[in-house]
Amino acid sequence: MSSPEVRVTFTPGGETVMVPAGELLLNAAVAAGVPLAAPCGGHGRCGKCRVHIQHGHCRPADSHERRVLSADQLKSGWRLACMARVQSDVVVSVGPAPKLVIAKPLEEELVEGVAPEPAVRQLTVTLPEPSLEDQRADFVRLKESLPAGIRLDSSALPALRELPGELRQGDFTVSATLLDDRLISVSTLDEAEHPLGAAVDIGTTTVVAYLVDLVTGEHLGAGTAHNPQVQHGADVISRTEYATTQPGGLARLQSEATGVVNQVIARALEGAGKQAEQIAEVVVVGNTCMHHLFLGLNPQHIAQSPYIPVNSEPIAIAPSCVGLKMNPFGHVLCLPIIAGYVGADTVGVITATRMLDSDRPVLAVDIGTNGEVALWSGERLVCASCAAGPAFEGAQIEYGMRAAPGAISEVELVDRDLQVTTIGDEPALGLCGSGLFDAMAVSLEAGLVDVMGRMIAPDHTADLPPALAQRLEGEGNTRRILLATNGHAEGQAGVCFTQKDVRELQLAKGAVRAAVELLLRECGLKVEDLSAVLLAGAFGNYLRPASALRMGLLPPMDPALIRGVGNAAGAGAMLALISLPFREQAYEVARRAEHIELAQRPDFQQMFMETMLFI
Amino acid sequence: MSSPEVRVTFTPGGETVMVPAGELLLNAAVAAGVPLAAPCGGHGRCGKCRVHIQHGHCRPADSHERRVLSADQLKSGWRLACMARVQSDVVVSVGPAPKLVIAKPLEEELVEGVAPEPAVRQLTVTLPEPSLEDQRADFVRLKESLPAGIRLDSSALPALRELPGELRQGDFTVSATLLDDRLISVSTLDEAEHPLGAAVDIGTTTVVAYLVDLVTGEHLGAGTAHNPQVQHGADVISRTEYATTQPGGLARLQSEATGVVNQVIARALEGAGKQAEQIAEVVVVGNTCMHHLFLGLNPQHIAQSPYIPVNSEPIAIAPSCVGLKMNPFGHVLCLPIIAGYVGADTVGVITATRMLDSDRPVLAVDIGTNGEVALWSGERLVCASCAAGPAFEGAQIEYGMRAAPGAISEVELVDRDLQVTTIGDEPALGLCGSGLFDAMAVSLEAGLVDVMGRMIAPDHTADLPPALAQRLEGEGNTRRILLATNGHAEGQAGVCFTQKDVRELQLAKGAVRAAVELLLRECGLKVEDLSAVLLAGAFGNYLRPASALRMGLLPPMDPALIRGVGNAAGAGAMLALISLPFREQAYEVARRAEHIELAQRPDFQQMFMETMLFI
Repeated sequence: MSSPEVRVTFTPGGETVMVPAGELLLNAAVAAGVPLAAPCGGHGRCGKCRVHIQHGHCRPADSHERRVLSADQLKSGWRLACMARVQSDVVVSVGPAPKLVIAKPLEEELVEGVAPEPAVRQLTVTLPEPSLEDQRADFVRLKESLPAGIRLDSSALPALRELPGELRQGDFTVSATLLDDRLISVSTLDEAEHPLGAAVDIGTTTVVAYLVDLVTGEHLGAGTAHNPQVQHGADVISRTEYATTQPGGLARLQSEATGVVNQVIARALEGAGKQAEQIAEVVVVGNTCMHHLFLGLNPQHIAQSPYIPVNSEPIAIAPSCVGLKMNPFGHVLCLPIIAGYVGADTVGVITATRMLDSDRPVLAVDIGTNGEVALWSGERLVCASCAAGPAFEGAQIEYGMRAAPGAISEVELVDRDLQVTTIGDEPALGLCGSGLFDAMAVSLEAGLVDVMGRMIAPDHTADLPPALAQRLEGEGNTRRILLATNGHAEGQAGVCFTQKDVRELQLAKGAVRAAVELLLRECGLKVEDLSAVLLAGAFGNYLRPASALRMGLLPPMDPALIRGVGNAAGAGAMLALISLPFREQAYEVARRAEHIELAQRPDFQQMFMETMLFI
Repeated sequence: MSSPEVRVTFTPGGETVMVPAGELLLNAAVAAGVPLAAPCGGHGRCGKCRVHIQHGHCRPADSHERRVLSADQLKSGWRLACMARVQSDVVVSVGPAPKLVIAKPLEEELVEGVAPEPAVRQLTVTLPEPSLEDQRADFVRLKESLPAGIRLDSSALPALRELPGELRQGDFTVSATLLDDRLISVSTLDEAEHPLGAAVDIGTTTVVAYLVDLVTGEHLGAGTAHNPQVQHGADVISRTEYATTQPGGLARLQSEATGVVNQVIARALEGAGKQAEQIAEVVVVGNTCMHHLFLGLNPQHIAQSPYIPVNSEPIAIAPSCVGLKMNPFGHVLCLPIIAGYVGADTVGVITATRMLDSDRPVLAVDIGTNGEVALWSGERLVCASCAAGPAFEGAQIEYGMRAAPGAISEVELVDRDLQVTTIGDEPALGLCGSGLFDAMAVSLEAGLVDVMGRMIAPDHTADLPPALAQRLEGEGNTRRILLATNGHAEGQAGVCFTQKDVRELQLAKGAVRAAVELLLRECGLKVEDLSAVLLAGAFGNYLRPASALRMGLLPPMDPALIRGVGNAAGAGAMLALISLPFREQAYEVARRAEHIELAQRPDFQQMFMETMLFI
């Protein structure tokens, strides 16, 4: 006997879906197209998917929910969507949909002034008319009429099908579009449209597409969306687990990846008033897991030692292989990756920042949801990954959230008390990466947290200014610092920075710092040798160098050497899209990069222990 | 108001179809899957589609049918399927389905003993197991574990998707199948199957596929079928007209071409007990029109001066582009063509006969439905086409038919009378190519036809043996020679060789002979310089050298120099399939061949006038 169906309505959007009674709210949300984050992979651990039941009933909470939510919260209607099963028709509030705040596009600076020299070329060609003395086939005639140095080897069959008609309609002067050495379209001059390209950065959390006119090099805009895979976990490990253990999991993750890429491209196209069919080439970067999931390659063996990807080389595929909406005779090029946890995104960062052009050592740190560190010594290019990311984006942070309106983005010490700033000056909803770093730095500075990462115990607050001391609540592992009263209404405490958060941050910053120190050691360099430290990723846009230094994410240095470079991974994809020399550089970066498996080094454990301290 | 539906049943097959009253019988036959030849393109001119109505009624015959069929024939139920429209339920006899008689496969001799060296290779590869010290991606590891000299550049995405699982299931020893430098499949040794290849010759009339094991080079059998495009006309000109003037005509011709290729491949697979997915490469030859129609390229501009094809170079396409049923990650390679009327079939003939290896001049004549002539002078390779073909296959011949059971295949002068032999010793139904040539040769020899091609007039038969004289009937342009009483029952006269046939043959042999003479002249050669004359095509299997010489198709020479080489075009496709050096030779043939547009030569008209005479 099948269960009766019940209606689930989500506010504020009003999305409605019928599901069998007993269905998980998270699945209902997926079915209704309401993305809910489930960073822990839907295991009832992280509490990020909590929702408020406004009408109707779910089955009683089990031990998971009771562990994460207080009795008061449960009583007032808060539930975990990944655990709560619907019993009757329900109305569920998922809170205001977070609007993405796009970082100031520092990445565009990295692309400015680069001459377009793309793989896609549009040429006006005039052919000698055929005659009984010159019976060359149309395609050969076209090929042999191209300007010197331009090679045409083959043709997409549909372009070949159009060729005789267009040639004669255009009186043997036509516009030919080539992708590498392949003819992909031909038309009379009247009907020719500029081919477009899209550079796509598939982040674990956020996906961005940049749209470019491949004739003029003009930037036509960008499109952004959350990565819908986030419902299966915030980090690449949970997604790999989902792909490996859930029936159809890999196919679903792939379809979500290609779906969101289509979505961001569509948004960019809409903004520019262009059509998908004009896109002749798409260049994709992402970490190795995103790269694999996008291509439908199982990331399983990346997740376990010895961490082997399926492919690391650049790969160009037909749009139909991944279902991308574009000129079907164009292609999708995935830039190469370096290792299981050092992906095409890092290749993009290294390419876009021109690190290898420097004759002095340069360090690049890309902290998105994962952390990847690259060091150019002036001779060697060494790279490493560190399990650093999700903490900085709020996944394991109790009040963590993405850099959306209401996120505390800044914490300062003013008049012997804390003062917070939120994105959009809205009531505080949580902490985003930069706010978290500030909270950590300020807590260390004000003596709220000691060198070992312990928050001051209740019986040791006497030396603190009263305003600060009053912010400390709880004890032991539940000790916390109240940063702001909460922007949410009922059932939730204010936004706090907790002891647990400090431990998460300590692990994460320890990992990044250890990677930096060990790469320097690998190349026989000291921190003083560095000429620049480039912070890539959304995170790098918000992070204040002083905070990074204070909490020890980076070794002590002149803060002026540290600078954010925006979405340099995306910039790398753009450069590879619009310039073949840059594309070749990206390939060269991947060939040249030495991946250092940090955990393999005998000095890793000792280093990691040291870098976890807040010295 | 739509017409009521009526039932059309075809005997002897019993195929049944419902069509609206008023539908053409030809269309009903197509819908029922009963192939009827309509060499004239369904214009009611050739009479080849005549059928016998056994029950029920069609609308009254119009002037076309009355012109082609006699009043007696119409009265006894004979109709033209391309003109007759059904009025009630009808039962229509289409006569015995002609069984194709496959020529003794001379072409296999051309392929025997060639070492397999195909583009598709299957290799057993053992890879070093990955470790933390060796984190190469699976694909890179495979690539770098191949034997020296084997290059692997890219992979089909699905092969990449299978790679990690197969590698680990096979303990890092796997069977990898490469097509050129692309990985198309990978499997454990247990599951590996030999990749197969198919060589396909798309003739205007007949389509053949040869199936080959690409590992062993073993021939696994062949499949044959009539080209269903024949319903739109016997020759390439009618089909081009159909493609150009009928809405959806090109798409239909393409779908018929790809459909019949699938059919012949399926027949070959069935005979060998193999699966379509095993076929990794298909190599296709055909004349330029067949090549274009197979690829969906409009042959329109081949049909009108200056006769320009869309493409002449070799082209490899994905199976999905033409809907071929095979390994979807393999490809279909169309061999290059030489000119609008000298196609990939001629490239195949020249390659398979190793003409260019000879240090003395060699002539090849490929008369299928079209005539193509190639001359190797020892230094130059010159080619020409001649509008010669359909006559020899019976299209414009009044009693012409294909080389099927019941076709008169031999005519001799015995005891001062004619004696005929039919294929399968069945009652005579018509004349096939070899019988036609014999009839022509014998008629010349016996003095039934004069040097100008006139049949002896009624008032000049006195000098003939009585038995021969009695065979002459009619007068002027309806003059004819009765060869045999007809194998058909009611309503039809015996099988005759007619004055009109002589005129058709005269034009056709004049064209071939003119081509031969002019190519010799182009190279400054005389007929005595020729070391061999190779007759390719189905026709060449039946033609007796003496008849060819007697009627003047070839210049006077030692008949021992003339020999049939079977379907050398198909053999060329097979060689290009199983041997990359032969494939390269085929490309070289196309690059090297000089196409001579005969009609452009100032001496063409004079030569043609002379070669039409039966001297």
